[in-house]
Amino acid sequence: MTIRRVAIIGLGLIGGSIGLAVRENLPDLTTTGWDADGDVRAQAAARGLVDTVGQTPADAVRDADLVILCVPVGAMAAAAQAIAAHITPGTIVSDVGSSKRSVCEALGAALPEAIVIPAHPVAGTENSGPDAGFATLFRQRWCIVTPAEDTPQTAVDALADFWVGLGATVEVMDARHHDLVLAVTSHIPHLIAYTIVGTASDLEEVTRGEVIKYSAGGFRDFTRIAASNPTMWRDVFLSNRDAVLEVLGRFTEDLSLLQRAIRNGDGDTLFELFDRTRTIRRSIIDEGQDDARPDFGRKDH
Amino acid sequence: MTIRRVAIIGLGLIGGSIGLAVRENLPDLTTTGWDADGDVRAQAAARGLVDTVGQTPADAVRDADLVILCVPVGAMAAAAQAIAAHITPGTIVSDVGSSKRSVCEALGAALPEAIVIPAHPVAGTENSGPDAGFATLFRQRWCIVTPAEDTPQTAVDALADFWVGLGATVEVMDARHHDLVLAVTSHIPHLIAYTIVGTASDLEEVTRGEVIKYSAGGFRDFTRIAASNPTMWRDVFLSNRDAVLEVLGRFTEDLSLLQRAIRNGDGDTLFELFDRTRTIRRSIIDEGQDDARPDFGRKDH
Repeated sequence: MTIRRVAIIGLGLIGGSIGLAVRENLPDLTTTGWDADGDVRAQAAARGLVDTVGQTPADAVRDADLVILCVPVGAMAAAAQAIAAHITPGTIVSDVGSSKRSVCEALGAALPEAIVIPAHPVAGTENSGPDAGFATLFRQRWCIVTPAEDTPQTAVDALADFWVGLGATVEVMDARHHDLVLAVTSHIPHLIAYTIVGTASDLEEVTRGEVIKYSAGGFRDFTRIAASNPTMWRDVFLSNRDAVLEVLGRFTEDLSLLQRAIRNGDGDTLFELFDRTRTIRRSIIDEGQDDARPDFGRKDH
Repeated sequence: MTIRRVAIIGLGLIGGSIGLAVRENLPDLTTTGWDADGDVRAQAAARGLVDTVGQTPADAVRDADLVILCVPVGAMAAAAQAIAAHITPGTIVSDVGSSKRSVCEALGAALPEAIVIPAHPVAGTENSGPDAGFATLFRQRWCIVTPAEDTPQTAVDALADFWVGLGATVEVMDARHHDLVLAVTSHIPHLIAYTIVGTASDLEEVTRGEVIKYSAGGFRDFTRIAASNPTMWRDVFLSNRDAVLEVLGRFTEDLSLLQRAIRNGDGDTLFELFDRTRTIRRSIIDEGQDDARPDFGRKDH
């Protein structure tokens, strides 16, 4: 099973980066693309995110071997329906959504004749839109692929080879486990970041100007992921409700224990946690998942 | 009131950076230093963090015009007592602690003949120790000074000029307000980061290896500040208990509202918050308090 022609539906940060990464890494492939927003289509054409920007979803997916849906999770069903009548039976249809159980169901229902293989490249920045993408986004990042049990192995291998070609490392996992793992490593961190940025903005006793001025004390770190695409993240929480609520429950339990330790002046409990959390960062750096330079290598002015 | 000789007690990240910044920016000043840890004293001497490393606190503070205590907040009282007999009456004694009410009390009680002016440069990295400091740490950062009402203005001005000389911008504030503002912009962000890193490490259903692998989904951002000095942060929470618990109460209320929105499938509430939190990051970047590059300018490999 050989992929020669890739159609990208949704030309924001991730879709655009896939197009640019294909051109840089897999120049024998041709790319087509489409976006529901006409302005995005125009910007995508101007930046050359794909070889050809279609005027309709049908234009973009015609003769594609691989279609990748790069839209918010809540828009997956509609995107799948828009292409259903225009793809050849046996086309691989994948996606890049941050939750996978709901996407598996939506794509399976809308595309009975396609080979549906949901996937999730764990990569991104806080920016979004067709100007945000870049060709190296997936390099040394993981891409999780969540095929069904009866998905043909040749198709899974072809999709995995595609992602490896873009610089990623592929891991196969079932959708339910994906959703729990990502609730921990991505969804709850975003929810907490959005919450604390909201809390800080709404305090009466501390002005927004003060929050901004003294943000280098730690707060500014949270504002980065709280600047992510709001539609995308709304859909993530709605579609991965069970796993998010489960991990959130654990987090709030743990936070209550620390709250009590602070109230009681129990320094040993605080120290014990603060000491052991250091080691996990070292592992993340050792495995190439973060910048080893202090402060993420931030450039101060 | 002129500062010519600065003594730095505690030669870790902040103390060491002050020494290096003085040499780079205020070369007419002489610096002495001391640290309770003999290994730190040796490393400080090897790196030249100060002109002279003393063998005792008395050595370091003798004839100083300004003494800066750069030790964890919980060690301030002991550090003040160690120098009390060796400073000239009228010497300015300041500090760099992250909470100020408790430090004001501790220094005032231990040093009745000094001019005590607590201060807090809002700057740092996740690293600690005598090898972590660098001369530009305070550049374009704020330094909050919290004098008492009866502190001589000439002394406050001299301390402010010193910090401006190191590249900082100085703001004067009362200690109580400082402690509330920093609870929001620094202490609660650290507490939340420590908590989520602990929660993720302790889950049974998700392995530590998975947490590390997929940390680029957002989690890795939290691991940076959760790698900060555990003694320093234990002391911050114990010494700023009231403000931390107050802001933590607001945060958990806000988090409960989002939890309910997720449970109820209320996408509008989620979107409304996620949309408005974007603007605060833009302001932080516009005011020079964070790197404008995507992903903090991280270097991916």
